[in-house]
Amino acid sequence: MDKTTIIMKKKLKLKDPILIVGLPGIGNVGKLVAEHLKSAFPTQKIAVLYSPHFPHQVVMLKNGGIRLVGNRFYLIQAKELKRDIVLLTGEAQAVTPEGQYEVNNKIVDFFKNKLGGSFIYTLGGYNVSRNMADAPKVYGNLTRKEMATNFKNTNIIFGKSRGMIWGSAGLILAFAKMKKIDGICMMGETGFLDVDASSAKAVLLELSKSIGLPIDTRNLDKIIEKTAKLVKELEKQASGFAQLGGTGGQPGGDRPIYIR
Amino acid sequence: MDKTTIIMKKKLKLKDPILIVGLPGIGNVGKLVAEHLKSAFPTQKIAVLYSPHFPHQVVMLKNGGIRLVGNRFYLIQAKELKRDIVLLTGEAQAVTPEGQYEVNNKIVDFFKNKLGGSFIYTLGGYNVSRNMADAPKVYGNLTRKEMATNFKNTNIIFGKSRGMIWGSAGLILAFAKMKKIDGICMMGETGFLDVDASSAKAVLLELSKSIGLPIDTRNLDKIIEKTAKLVKELEKQASGFAQLGGTGGQPGGDRPIYIR
Amino acid sequence: MDKTTIIMKKKLKLKDPILIVGLPGIGNVGKLVAEHLKSAFPTQKIAVLYSPHFPHQVVMLKNGGIRLVGNRFYLIQAKELKRDIVLLTGEAQAVTPEGQYEVNNKIVDFFKNKLGGSFIYTLGGYNVSRNMADAPKVYGNLTRKEMATNFKNTNIIFGKSRGMIWGSAGLILAFAKMKKIDGICMMGETGFLDVDASSAKAVLLELSKSIGLPIDTRNLDKIIEKTAKLVKELEKQASGFAQLGGTGGQPGGDRPIYIR
Amino acid sequence: MDKTTIIMKKKLKLKDPILIVGLPGIGNVGKLVAEHLKSAFPTQKIAVLYSPHFPHQVVMLKNGGIRLVGNRFYLIQAKELKRDIVLLTGEAQAVTPEGQYEVNNKIVDFFKNKLGGSFIYTLGGYNVSRNMADAPKVYGNLTRKEMATNFKNTNIIFGKSRGMIWGSAGLILAFAKMKKIDGICMMGETGFLDVDASSAKAVLLELSKSIGLPIDTRNLDKIIEKTAKLVKELEKQASGFAQLGGTGGQPGGDRPIYIR
Repeated sequence: MDKTTIIMKKKLKLKDPILIVGLPGIGNVGKLVAEHLKSAFPTQKIAVLYSPHFPHQVVMLKNGGIRLVGNRFYLIQAKELKRDIVLLTGEAQAVTPEGQYEVNNKIVDFFKNKLGGSFIYTLGGYNVSRNMADAPKVYGNLTRKEMATNFKNTNIIFGKSRGMIWGSAGLILAFAKMKKIDGICMMGETGFLDVDASSAKAVLLELSKSIGLPIDTRNLDKIIEKTAKLVKELEKQASGFAQLGGTGGQPGGDRPIYIR
Repeated sequence: MDKTTIIMKKKLKLKDPILIVGLPGIGNVGKLVAEHLKSAFPTQKIAVLYSPHFPHQVVMLKNGGIRLVGNRFYLIQAKELKRDIVLLTGEAQAVTPEGQYEVNNKIVDFFKNKLGGSFIYTLGGYNVSRNMADAPKVYGNLTRKEMATNFKNTNIIFGKSRGMIWGSAGLILAFAKMKKIDGICMMGETGFLDVDASSAKAVLLELSKSIGLPIDTRNLDKIIEKTAKLVKELEKQASGFAQLGGTGGQPGGDRPIYIR
Repeated sequence: MDKTTIIMKKKLKLKDPILIVGLPGIGNVGKLVAEHLKSAFPTQKIAVLYSPHFPHQVVMLKNGGIRLVGNRFYLIQAKELKRDIVLLTGEAQAVTPEGQYEVNNKIVDFFKNKLGGSFIYTLGGYNVSRNMADAPKVYGNLTRKEMATNFKNTNIIFGKSRGMIWGSAGLILAFAKMKKIDGICMMGETGFLDVDASSAKAVLLELSKSIGLPIDTRNLDKIIEKTAKLVKELEKQASGFAQLGGTGGQPGGDRPIYIR
Repeated sequence: MDKTTIIMKKKLKLKDPILIVGLPGIGNVGKLVAEHLKSAFPTQKIAVLYSPHFPHQVVMLKNGGIRLVGNRFYLIQAKELKRDIVLLTGEAQAVTPEGQYEVNNKIVDFFKNKLGGSFIYTLGGYNVSRNMADAPKVYGNLTRKEMATNFKNTNIIFGKSRGMIWGSAGLILAFAKMKKIDGICMMGETGFLDVDASSAKAVLLELSKSIGLPIDTRNLDKIIEKTAKLVKELEKQASGFAQLGGTGGQPGGDRPIYIR
């Protein structure tokens, strides 16, 4: 537990898997998409990643148990697809640059060498002061610009996003490129929301087209609604939990379970 | 001294020991309980833990001496119990995630492998905006949910606490679980107090029931009173000590000795 | 990718090269000069430096691709000079003291041992509350004071700058001195601008005299103008991008490409 | 340069040396005493300590040169004393707990093993809201309380200081104790001044009595006066230098040379 470790739950032979990475971040866009996929498809947990670079926290579970903060790899085998999907999500990203380099390197190595995968989708938010009434646009950045032709059937916008991609959504792509794997970072426009479900929906729809997997939007819309309600509730609660750090429970971190 | 080190003072054969962890944290609940146990029972210091991940401080002692900031393991052999109690307390927790992982790992390893223990109680505060007039509730989280039956004679509430447990109270439990030891984190409701003695009393009473060890509450109440008085005094003093960091003495850290 | 690494693109035999270091920093003076040199002369990328001590970011490229944040070494072979110029620039400096020591040590070692160089120019800003109407002065500090005679044909002011040089501009010089290479840190007066092009112009002119390489100032002035315009634009945009951190794109980092 | 290193300038056989540590810290008390000793006695630089845990800075020297931020050991051989004095001072302390542990451990090891010393004086400020009109008291803490008898001829107050000693003044003492060397931390009362020369004078006088070395107070008073004047000047200047970090010169760090 002193080093970043990926523990594989079972040995599996995967069919040319793709990796979808949805972790906490700007607008929690990636995290929301990942949690939706988890609720929309049967999943199987295949590996867990722990790291001393994650925040020193433990999740209190509904059943009275606990779980160390970590990232988890889930297998999704959709009958519509010939390829397996591996979904990576979790409670946290590494908190320092050094930790980010270590964790994201391990993720790419694991996906390439242990799971035999060759294409990665990282999902995140693109922070603009967008008009919340408009539909959020989805921007894309690629390991190799030539890959853009593979996304012709989508509305992903290439070459218009500017600035920096922070954290796993960027570094996983950069390390993939260095290790000769391809990938795309898909970012939904987002603004001032901590949890932006409509940006997540936009990304999910483009992801759906990209991988050729139809997704029931009714379930998706329910989540948007639920989230909107919970966000409001949390905002109300939040005023009471200003204190941070130290030992003990922190209900200020009490997000709806599909965005943990 | 460059690495986290546990120095054992004497070799002992303990009787199926339990570990009680009370360190500084939210409301200083765990720390207060630990200091009360130290004053309520004869104790024997059996080991000291030093770490470069603790704050770079030295405690000024009443006798004019000094002590490096650290954690200490005390042995309590209560005649009412067939098992030995090992109490862990100290001035600090590690300040970084990496430090927290290292220190708490070592604590669990030491307790399991050197002391031969198999059950851990970590104590802390649960941060809510509670009505200070109500008696603080005590919440519990377990390494395994099935353990809840062992706490039927208590008023510990399982499965209702939400969010994250920060620091040693959480990580020690998580590492215990990974290393196949059982444990519970007991958290007393607390709010805006830096030192919440009534929350600590609530936790102490549940701990007393849990381990089957009667504890004289008069002494406990005296501490609550004394703390309340000292807290007021400290609040008065505090206005004068805004400056932080650097070399030299810092009476701003001058807590009553039973909560150091 | 877990350690600071310099990847050499091609093996070259350089002619007694000098190193010019222009990285982001106070007023972005060094960075601006470096980007101007890149636009004023044909360059050849000869090496890339990556480090886990840089911010955990990826640059979104105009062509829809990405680039891991890093530093790059460019070769400039000006026909007016008998010596080769190696220019070091990039998006970032290391964010911790430990990272700064590691990265800057590697830079000096690489320049001395792999490129066979023996003189280093580091460029930066000197933070004063200067009257923006006055021409910015240029201050110099040397690895050895005797070297000042080599700069007699310039207006660089020696022995009048006070205080500390932060980051690469200082550490590279200090490590050069320890490794028996000579060098100068040239600092242009700057004040409250994030991107101070006129301070950069002042430094560039002194650099030009120092190395004996004439530089077309028209191009330079265009950059000053463009920058001024872009800075204004950025200031306008900036109000919309207060949120920081997390995963995803951050157009708040959207500087004009010649100062990235 | 990647690790904390002590470079010895010359091999010397010292006469039962004592170590006096005066580094930047609360009120810059220790630093001021050290700089006064340097100006009051002939000194010889015998060793330099560099560390990647110090701030990533370089000092701009009056002669136009530079110096990497570090700590320096000076030898003072006063004819009044049979023992040699080694004075440790410099521009900085380590900025992280891990760095503090590493650097201060190395200092004690070096003094004990390379210089053959056996007693250490660390100097610092004791932060109280003192009435600036009163003479500052001097508090002491010892590696062993029995040592107090050795300080009977002084006005050092033992057993009354409370709270924590931060940084080198505390850790060096703690590590000395662990490595079976004795020592004292002498702290002068100080309040809101960044540079408290009268607190330093109080400490210097007690140090003088402790080691039996008379010190000309005229020179001392001059420094107090000069400092007072410079502090005022700095306060005036300070308003102009709010910006921090990045590459380049920082005259905000431009303290009078005897407190650098």
